[in-house]
Amino acid sequence: MEKLVVIGGGAAGMSASSRARRLKPQMEIEVFEATKMVSHAPCGIPYFIEGLFDDENLFMTYTPQFFIENRKINVRINTRVTEIDLSSRVVYAEGKDGKMKSEYDYLVISTGSKPKRLPSEGNDRVFYIHHPAEAVSLRQKLWSLNTIAIIGGGILGVEAAEALTQRDKKVLLIHRGEYLLNKSLDQELGKVITDRISRDVELRLGEKVIEIKQGGRLIITDKGKYEVDGTIVAIGVEPNVDLVKDKIQLGTTGAIKVDEYMRTNYREVYSAGDNTESVNIVTGKPYWVPFAPVANKMGYVAGSNIGGEPMKFPGVVNTQITKYKEYYIGRVGLQEEEAKKYGFHPVSATITGKTRARYYPGAKDIHVKVIADEETKRILGAQIVGEEEVLGRIDMMAAAIMKGFTIEDTFFIEMGYLPAISRVWDPVIVAIRKIMED
Amino acid sequence: MEKLVVIGGGAAGMSASSRARRLKPQMEIEVFEATKMVSHAPCGIPYFIEGLFDDENLFMTYTPQFFIENRKINVRINTRVTEIDLSSRVVYAEGKDGKMKSEYDYLVISTGSKPKRLPSEGNDRVFYIHHPAEAVSLRQKLWSLNTIAIIGGGILGVEAAEALTQRDKKVLLIHRGEYLLNKSLDQELGKVITDRISRDVELRLGEKVIEIKQGGRLIITDKGKYEVDGTIVAIGVEPNVDLVKDKIQLGTTGAIKVDEYMRTNYREVYSAGDNTESVNIVTGKPYWVPFAPVANKMGYVAGSNIGGEPMKFPGVVNTQITKYKEYYIGRVGLQEEEAKKYGFHPVSATITGKTRARYYPGAKDIHVKVIADEETKRILGAQIVGEEEVLGRIDMMAAAIMKGFTIEDTFFIEMGYLPAISRVWDPVIVAIRKIMED
Repeated sequence: MEKLVVIGGGAAGMSASSRARRLKPQMEIEVFEATKMVSHAPCGIPYFIEGLFDDENLFMTYTPQFFIENRKINVRINTRVTEIDLSSRVVYAEGKDGKMKSEYDYLVISTGSKPKRLPSEGNDRVFYIHHPAEAVSLRQKLWSLNTIAIIGGGILGVEAAEALTQRDKKVLLIHRGEYLLNKSLDQELGKVITDRISRDVELRLGEKVIEIKQGGRLIITDKGKYEVDGTIVAIGVEPNVDLVKDKIQLGTTGAIKVDEYMRTNYREVYSAGDNTESVNIVTGKPYWVPFAPVANKMGYVAGSNIGGEPMKFPGVVNTQITKYKEYYIGRVGLQEEEAKKYGFHPVSATITGKTRARYYPGAKDIHVKVIADEETKRILGAQIVGEEEVLGRIDMMAAAIMKGFTIEDTFFIEMGYLPAISRVWDPVIVAIRKIMED
Repeated sequence: MEKLVVIGGGAAGMSASSRARRLKPQMEIEVFEATKMVSHAPCGIPYFIEGLFDDENLFMTYTPQFFIENRKINVRINTRVTEIDLSSRVVYAEGKDGKMKSEYDYLVISTGSKPKRLPSEGNDRVFYIHHPAEAVSLRQKLWSLNTIAIIGGGILGVEAAEALTQRDKKVLLIHRGEYLLNKSLDQELGKVITDRISRDVELRLGEKVIEIKQGGRLIITDKGKYEVDGTIVAIGVEPNVDLVKDKIQLGTTGAIKVDEYMRTNYREVYSAGDNTESVNIVTGKPYWVPFAPVANKMGYVAGSNIGGEPMKFPGVVNTQITKYKEYYIGRVGLQEEEAKKYGFHPVSATITGKTRARYYPGAKDIHVKVIADEETKRILGAQIVGEEEVLGRIDMMAAAIMKGFTIEDTFFIEMGYLPAISRVWDPVIVAIRKIMED
């Protein structure tokens, strides 16, 4: 009987197993998961810290038991894979039941990502927001502190700032960039959200952390030192490829290189999720996007191919959406500087519009930036910050960017108009029109 | 000096004039508008009736004075065009300053739509929700009544029902179809919204009005008779082509036939807005869509071409979005039966999902139907009813349908994921996946 082994029971791993199970009802499927959770959702941790829910089981889409009973997938939680023998096709693991080995016909590597770390002298008050399995103890510790430093002003740093200020913590946010979310947004919209957050949080921008001392109670930067009760490090994540980095080909991004079928350089070994490299559809170049929807779809594609139904993963456009209190923040495609770096000749327009018809009560500002290539007229990127209906506009632009829509193609998208939630000239179309007319 | 004459100062007319002005600063531009309003927004009338705003000037994006002073567009309000002489290129009009004639080099016909009427014996209590210029007197009358019948359960009928029930009126809604919005939604989602509205409104479905009597106080249907205080007729609109129907070529939809440049069968005569036929991008066949964003873009295209910058209008996909209280209702493309009629072999999936991550408080149901063609695998249509983020998902599907995305193309759209407002497997993607797997 054919056997599939999956290393890592997160989004990609469980998506791959489930798809393979559906296509090959007879296949033996075994999943090794190092923690107690499967199909878990790290994106939920900030909201757990905020106190929006208390049941840690809600981090899981399905329980291990569900997979075992309903999908006949042999999930082994609290079991860490220690070694892979790629030539003999054997996985070695270690768990509460001791050591074990498992032979495979197909292997899926879905070990996810791991947080980048900072050097620290002691670490009892240094926190990384990463795995739901640690969320309960993390929250307990954070709630007991008063003044908390966050190092890093990317998406996770901003989400942590929202969570902690909602808990009435005093927050100090130290960020290397000149404005928050600078890896997601260009300066125009980055400033909007930085100004907003600066009302709640003490911001230190353009400042680099040298060292964390006293177990997280003292932070030394290139510009000063800060005493706090504890420190969250949120300076980004990297592919977790420890298990395979010397055995399986990695890409230029440091993640595992795969073909369109999610196959590594070993025919029977697939890789999916945050540990896996992708291709940026706009540039055609290797790219790495550690987000759950991409991980899920990569897993689905790997599972389809293992299940005998060939499917190709088309690549990514780096869609991101987050929120800070009343603001939603979305972006997709390339930033303007990134576009230049890849050899495009970007033109852009940034506008501030309203979210509702002028006569409809409650309209809010919405800020839109659209970036296009002057030569090919293709849309390269879009960024939106606003209080209503940001997500869907970003989704629409993701579709447009994935299929190479031109400026004019996008202008003519027949967007819906409802006075209560939009404008007859949608803010996105107004930005596009500005590029057309400039 | 070149002269452009525009008949009708609504969305299309003012969009065409403004675009032509920008491209040809020296051109003489004259707009004839039969009412006192220009660049007005009929879509706002239900919200005015609901009492969400009181200033009728808010119906106008810009005032006539603004166009005259800032854009040097000679707007003549309260002036009705009575005759066009296409061979001599002369327009005859009549207003408060008496009769006048105006020669043109370019003509734009943007006379909009008019409500379909029902036979009635007397009409002092029969109301049509159509032109913002009549909104103040219409609202005054409606607010003075207690029990009001609405004939027609399309978008306008539903919006009127929302407005009147919010004003605590007793509403009787009589509709020929078996469920509400049956020209917009298939039965699955139509039922959801019909059930919701039936909680507030007395519904008579599958019932045909024979006659309105006693000036709107008595309605005779094929199944009964109803005494009410007044009657709103909302059975649809038709192209307002009275002025030109014997002179300019109409299309099979009854609207003015144009080429991609918005030109009629007279080279120098353009048509734009609700009086104008379009092409359905999915079927390639003539189609008619009387909605403001389409009218605005048609006007923009006509104005660009008149201004010497050639531009083509790509056609329509019939995007619609409306709301009823907590529900947003969107749709785009073809309905399933319509798809069959046009020779497609539709396959579809209908799902009910949630609007937020399972751990995020406040999630609501969202209902999604997606329709695709079994042979070409192209997406043909999408319908969504839900309480959050409906608009943007419809916009995304509009982009997909306009450019012929396949089922798999759409599955791979990298939609944004934020636990507060979406799911890691977006409900749209879940519906698509269901079609793929069935």
